[in-house]
Amino acid sequence: MNKRRLEAFSDGVVAIIITITVLEMKVPHGGGMENLMPQLPVFLSYVLSFFYVGIYWTNHHHMLHACTVVTGSVLWANLHLLFWLSLFPFTTGWMGENHFTAVPTALYGAVLLMAAIAYYLLQQTIIRAQGQNSILKEAIGSDWKGKLSVVLYLIAIAVSRHSSWVAQAVLVFAALIWVIPDRRIEKRLAMPEDLAIRFESQDGTTRLTQARGPMGVEKASDYESLKLSEE
Amino acid sequence: MNKRRLEAFSDGVVAIIITITVLEMKVPHGGGMENLMPQLPVFLSYVLSFFYVGIYWTNHHHMLHACTVVTGSVLWANLHLLFWLSLFPFTTGWMGENHFTAVPTALYGAVLLMAAIAYYLLQQTIIRAQGQNSILKEAIGSDWKGKLSVVLYLIAIAVSRHSSWVAQAVLVFAALIWVIPDRRIEKRLAMPEDLAIRFESQDGTTRLTQARGPMGVEKASDYESLKLSEE
Amino acid sequence: MNKRRLEAFSDGVVAIIITITVLEMKVPHGGGMENLMPQLPVFLSYVLSFFYVGIYWTNHHHMLHACTVVTGSVLWANLHLLFWLSLFPFTTGWMGENHFTAVPTALYGAVLLMAAIAYYLLQQTIIRAQGQNSILKEAIGSDWKGKLSVVLYLIAIAVSRHSSWVAQAVLVFAALIWVIPDRRIEKRLAMPEDLAIRFESQDGTTRLTQARGPMGVEKASDYESLKLSEE
Amino acid sequence: MNKRRLEAFSDGVVAIIITITVLEMKVPHGGGMENLMPQLPVFLSYVLSFFYVGIYWTNHHHMLHACTVVTGSVLWANLHLLFWLSLFPFTTGWMGENHFTAVPTALYGAVLLMAAIAYYLLQQTIIRAQGQNSILKEAIGSDWKGKLSVVLYLIAIAVSRHSSWVAQAVLVFAALIWVIPDRRIEKRLAMPEDLAIRFESQDGTTRLTQARGPMGVEKASDYESLKLSEE
Repeated sequence: MNKRRLEAFSDGVVAIIITITVLEMKVPHGGGMENLMPQLPVFLSYVLSFFYVGIYWTNHHHMLHACTVVTGSVLWANLHLLFWLSLFPFTTGWMGENHFTAVPTALYGAVLLMAAIAYYLLQQTIIRAQGQNSILKEAIGSDWKGKLSVVLYLIAIAVSRHSSWVAQAVLVFAALIWVIPDRRIEKRLAMPEDLAIRFESQDGTTRLTQARGPMGVEKASDYESLKLSEE
Repeated sequence: MNKRRLEAFSDGVVAIIITITVLEMKVPHGGGMENLMPQLPVFLSYVLSFFYVGIYWTNHHHMLHACTVVTGSVLWANLHLLFWLSLFPFTTGWMGENHFTAVPTALYGAVLLMAAIAYYLLQQTIIRAQGQNSILKEAIGSDWKGKLSVVLYLIAIAVSRHSSWVAQAVLVFAALIWVIPDRRIEKRLAMPEDLAIRFESQDGTTRLTQARGPMGVEKASDYESLKLSEE
Repeated sequence: MNKRRLEAFSDGVVAIIITITVLEMKVPHGGGMENLMPQLPVFLSYVLSFFYVGIYWTNHHHMLHACTVVTGSVLWANLHLLFWLSLFPFTTGWMGENHFTAVPTALYGAVLLMAAIAYYLLQQTIIRAQGQNSILKEAIGSDWKGKLSVVLYLIAIAVSRHSSWVAQAVLVFAALIWVIPDRRIEKRLAMPEDLAIRFESQDGTTRLTQARGPMGVEKASDYESLKLSEE
Repeated sequence: MNKRRLEAFSDGVVAIIITITVLEMKVPHGGGMENLMPQLPVFLSYVLSFFYVGIYWTNHHHMLHACTVVTGSVLWANLHLLFWLSLFPFTTGWMGENHFTAVPTALYGAVLLMAAIAYYLLQQTIIRAQGQNSILKEAIGSDWKGKLSVVLYLIAIAVSRHSSWVAQAVLVFAALIWVIPDRRIEKRLAMPEDLAIRFESQDGTTRLTQARGPMGVEKASDYESLKLSEE
């Protein structure tokens, strides 16, 4: 199965989600500052959603980098994640138009929660497909960010009926913990490129080693020591 | 001809279809639960369409994986499929807004039927282009899912004027039989990657075999036994 | 410069154009056949535009296949083409909503004319960048389809004020001459893949020939005789 | 980290931005010339925005060509740029609908200014990631276009409240200086393709040099002298 196409499709969907969310910010009819101002809450909710979509995209990027096998289950787990992300434009627009009141905020948090669960399921599906020695499992470690996010979304939903502003603050905080991309995976996978093929030439013959063997992607340190122009 | 570009274009169109379908779910003006509820039927029809688009995408993914030749006819057969898929946002929105009544349900089923026919035609076009020993022909086998789907869509269309809920149930059932992706093709084509080149090095020379020879893609079992770093 | 990215960007824009054109077909409020019928002209104009976008995409696909050099001028000539294509949703919607009357039909034809000119300019830009022995120049030959199309669009524009139905017939005919993709280029460029590297192994050494040398892409016949697994 | 996916995602977002901007040009209800004319200002502002998005795309294209390392910071600096670009449809629509009056023109200029700053930050992030001998730093040189643009956007914003037409002229002029793509980078990076691997075969052995070594991409002149089929 072709990982490139999975990446390209996900990128396409995420690119469209991020861009059509901005369409909820309707062009006002008058040309004055006073016509622009009512769009400010929609703009702010767009900024928050842009952040969240950016977080999902960079983490998805890292996760798929550590994905060595693409099965039918991975495709569907990925579609499941994209489904919840595709609801962002709706919840963003609703929350912005209603000035961050209780019910829209709770729905916004609920969709974030479902997306987080879908992300977790996708992660587990890839790990299961990789079997023992899963590089992704090793890379994500304790996944404290993922677990903390779920708790924060639950808090935001619960709190929204009492104070939607506290709920907003919790959602912003839950975004901030993710802005730093998952350096664990980044470190673990400092591979040159997708099609990493190792060429070695020592004794008049050419030996070729494909980077993605049956044991998953090999250690980054192996690649750093590659000396391609050696004789 | 370049298969990668065919894939990328189809992915782009499908990604946009899946995402703009959600735009039919209009952001309600009020911020209460009672404002959200009227959108529920549109949401449900979106869920069904998301499933169908996901089914088409994963199966298309599998089908193109077994496609070794891209001719002008394949391009147009693919565009024909994309045409019918591009009508999904319209029929989804119409069915949702009218609470799954008879005529919109029949139209929804009719577009599904046309998409199924277009998919079948694309399949046949690829098989014809591959000539004898077509790997796709072998992979799809009896294609009972494709045939059963067409029958189910016809039933749904016929039944819709009597009971649109029975028609809905038939359409949901027709989706469920497809959710399991086409493992036959998956098994048949357990290839490492698009650019599968076999490198062998045995006696001081390097032999290279391109995975996609004139006889189509070779057996998956050949690839499993690849030992790339052997001397 | 990177041809792949030019292709991907163009594919993205064309995929979006083809898909948002369908959004001009507004979901009717009632659920009866009588509510659907007023959308029929918009649907028909969508079918015509889908055809035209499909024609541009397949021809663009063929043209870029024969494009060996991507300069800044090629990027801008391509953007110029995409600009005129991006007006298709607008002219399609306007023509459909106004039931193919004179002025919208003339505007529709005018945008087709501008797109044809932009396509011609892009073609010339690539040919100029390729210099002598341009493979694209050789491939397009007399380009009678391109020239005839421009004449037909001009006729359609001129005729539209007298009979918009004759103008429509001319536009449909101008589409039909293109549906057969440009087999000249297809024949000329029967290359295996983008990254066509020739590997030869005869006498214990490995010789490698890059498919795109300084003289442009080599003859297809050279590739057909490639025997990659020879010893 | 995978540069291809960064490019593909950015291309997707930019392709959507360029295409949905045209949606601000609403299809008029009547079919006469007098119904079309009110859309002219929106069309003109669309032309200007298309130019600007085209400028960003070609320059982004050139910049990423010189980008050899993709870190988490590069991903976020790129998302930051895409954020400001994603506001183009809104500001374009608002400026067009209000016939280029003062406040919408100032907002349009302000978003251009923020995009220019975001572009500069992305540039600096890549240069920092490349470390010493950064090929991008060398390629951009004095970056007088970038600096002049920022000054011009500031002038346009300041001038807009007195004469929005002078502001428009300044914005058009600021676009024109960019239409010529960054030939410095183009010259510096006349590389054959993304995956530039040098194969040399002289004495019965095969030497392979990866184009992107730890010192960044090597001189174009090295590549021009490549003779791949030499024995």
